[in-house]
Amino acid sequence: MKYTAHINIMPLKELLDPQGKAVNNSLHNLGLTGVHDVRIGKHILMTMEAATKEAAENMTREACKKLLANQVMESFDFTVVEG
Amino acid sequence: MKYTAHINIMPLKELLDPQGKAVNNSLHNLGLTGVHDVRIGKHILMTMEAATKEAAENMTREACKKLLANQVMESFDFTVVEG
Repeated sequence: MKYTAHINIMPLKELLDPQGKAVNNSLHNLGLTGVHDVRIGKHILMTMEAATKEAAENMTREACKKLLANQVMESFDFTVVEG
Repeated sequence: MKYTAHINIMPLKELLDPQGKAVNNSLHNLGLTGVHDVRIGKHILMTMEAATKEAAENMTREACKKLLANQVMESFDFTVVEG
């Protein structure tokens, strides 16, 4: 069966996010002064072939831990849907 | 009222995504051979102060169009939630 994982990888809350800070300042300069805070991470779409949804979730977790997320600085969450 | 926008910015389907391709190959090398395709974009969390949810959505759309997304190469979608 074919599954698609929607993965979000974000910098940990405890850490500064200089890219987000820069974007926040730029938005203020563009006149969007209502914006308080911006944090920027990665959004990953991964399609895979797996026997069950559980297998697809395990594969996604392994991919995040081994390659996609640096757990010292980033947290990840994901949802897996069929198709 | 305080609102949070969850924004996803992805490379357009028609375009190659070399970063995703590289990650796809790396996952295969790590033994995750069930993975077919990987596409990598940005996930942005933006908190803002706005009078209504509609105002917050308009602010988010403006931020995406003016700064966050390059619409020649990227598409964006977002959801705005209270709090």
